[in-house]
Amino acid sequence: LYIGTSMASAPLKRIAIVGVGLIGGSVGLAVRTRGLADEVVGIGRNASKLSLAKRLGAISDGTTNLAKGINGAELVIICTPVERVADDAAQVAALWQGQPRAELLITDVGSTKANILNEVAARRAAKAWPKEVRFIGSHPIAGNERTGVKFSNADLFEGKTVVITPNGATGRPLAQLQRFWRGLGAKVHSMTADEHDRAMAAISHLPHLLASAIAAATPAGYVTLAGTGWTDTTRIAAGDAELWRQILLDNRSNTLAALARFETTLAHFRQALESVDGAALHQLLEEAKRIRDAV
Amino acid sequence: LYIGTSMASAPLKRIAIVGVGLIGGSVGLAVRTRGLADEVVGIGRNASKLSLAKRLGAISDGTTNLAKGINGAELVIICTPVERVADDAAQVAALWQGQPRAELLITDVGSTKANILNEVAARRAAKAWPKEVRFIGSHPIAGNERTGVKFSNADLFEGKTVVITPNGATGRPLAQLQRFWRGLGAKVHSMTADEHDRAMAAISHLPHLLASAIAAATPAGYVTLAGTGWTDTTRIAAGDAELWRQILLDNRSNTLAALARFETTLAHFRQALESVDGAALHQLLEEAKRIRDAV
Repeated sequence: LYIGTSMASAPLKRIAIVGVGLIGGSVGLAVRTRGLADEVVGIGRNASKLSLAKRLGAISDGTTNLAKGINGAELVIICTPVERVADDAAQVAALWQGQPRAELLITDVGSTKANILNEVAARRAAKAWPKEVRFIGSHPIAGNERTGVKFSNADLFEGKTVVITPNGATGRPLAQLQRFWRGLGAKVHSMTADEHDRAMAAISHLPHLLASAIAAATPAGYVTLAGTGWTDTTRIAAGDAELWRQILLDNRSNTLAALARFETTLAHFRQALESVDGAALHQLLEEAKRIRDAV
Repeated sequence: LYIGTSMASAPLKRIAIVGVGLIGGSVGLAVRTRGLADEVVGIGRNASKLSLAKRLGAISDGTTNLAKGINGAELVIICTPVERVADDAAQVAALWQGQPRAELLITDVGSTKANILNEVAARRAAKAWPKEVRFIGSHPIAGNERTGVKFSNADLFEGKTVVITPNGATGRPLAQLQRFWRGLGAKVHSMTADEHDRAMAAISHLPHLLASAIAAATPAGYVTLAGTGWTDTTRIAAGDAELWRQILLDNRSNTLAALARFETTLAHFRQALESVDGAALHQLLEEAKRIRDAV
């Protein structure tokens, strides 16, 4: 019985990361620490940020030239904000036309998936996309309220879930993507882009909006009295406002639906309090605790 | 110039802690670790919990007999749930009548203050309270979602804020109480009980209710996809439901007022999302971030 060699795989020759911030930098660090690729090229608009990423070991080289950066890559990971992912992927695909025979897999790390996949499908339908280039969406459920390559962490994905949204993709590209994220220590979870976006509205996007609303509704004079309850509950409100504007607007209908469900639940809490109904309040708190304790 | 001796003070001979859970146990451990009292007597209804507290070093001795437990104490700290604090304090005061000459300071650690102080004032007015016994409310803004003496921590109050509500109390008891909490490493903040309850509604009680509502409104099937955003935002929902039922009902009018303010803010977020108003949404997220970043 000879187990193991079929699981092992040679390192990739080259991966390219478009957008080297907290997530892109952590992907690079994780890949390089684990020896999963010979070269990790960082591509960005800001040369000094690329220099910092290289000094931190997140990339083996950086370039502001997209065509140069993706040249010879087997995998391109788009780590730009959600509103830019489809455009950036399309640019990569268009530039790939100079190397028509080699296969390329593009993925991303965006917090929303359906719009990105729809835009990619539209570009493909418009024939602006060579057939050798495949796109499968990814969303690593990792990261925190910080931004910038200086917070990169080689173990950011260790034990975390990465959702991938094959939406019909199968075969070699799908296996390659699963292997890639598993190589970084992640658990890979497949679902459709629509399922992903509904789930994330409930588990991430609405909680972000509510944490922001809690912070915004707190009178400034009371903040000095905050204990760990307030600071934990509002932690994600410290996230980058522009990134979250994009995420919330991109997933707005699912987020509004999740908000409507939340408001129904909140009305039960308010009614229990207004009517001094201790038994109902206790039951609501117990039910919340049961769901919270399940994690 | 001779600084220091006036700050130093001999350890108390005896303090009694009524209710030895997470907070009571942490007070005991902190006092004993720092040598601030010769004896720390734990008083409770459950002998086996007192034995555990003694084994953990949180108390030097335990008793289920209140009269015996407070005998000879200079300070009694009521660490029972908020609905029981005034009753427990009144029992301590009534039992003190056998030792009419010695002064006794009672304090508590309840998360609400106005009702407790009103009830204590009512007992005092009814003459069921000897004049040697003083009560000044305390609220250490420390602790977490856990309960039970086994989670006690000698440094729980280190660097944390303890709000005290003198409501007219001055002189020796007030100085004694401030010195006590500072001895445990806390910063002491004085305010009226009403101010305290308004502030806590905004900074603690409403966030607890909202964290519970977020958890309760999350479809159970999505919880496995939760990242640190959801787990942090809902952490306090894992708190003891009975303790929080009492706190929320005790401070219900302030909590409902804070909830009304929150709902106004939330409506602005919802409107920005409904009307796809990216600029307004960005501004709301920035304002929330500004308040959150201030801590």
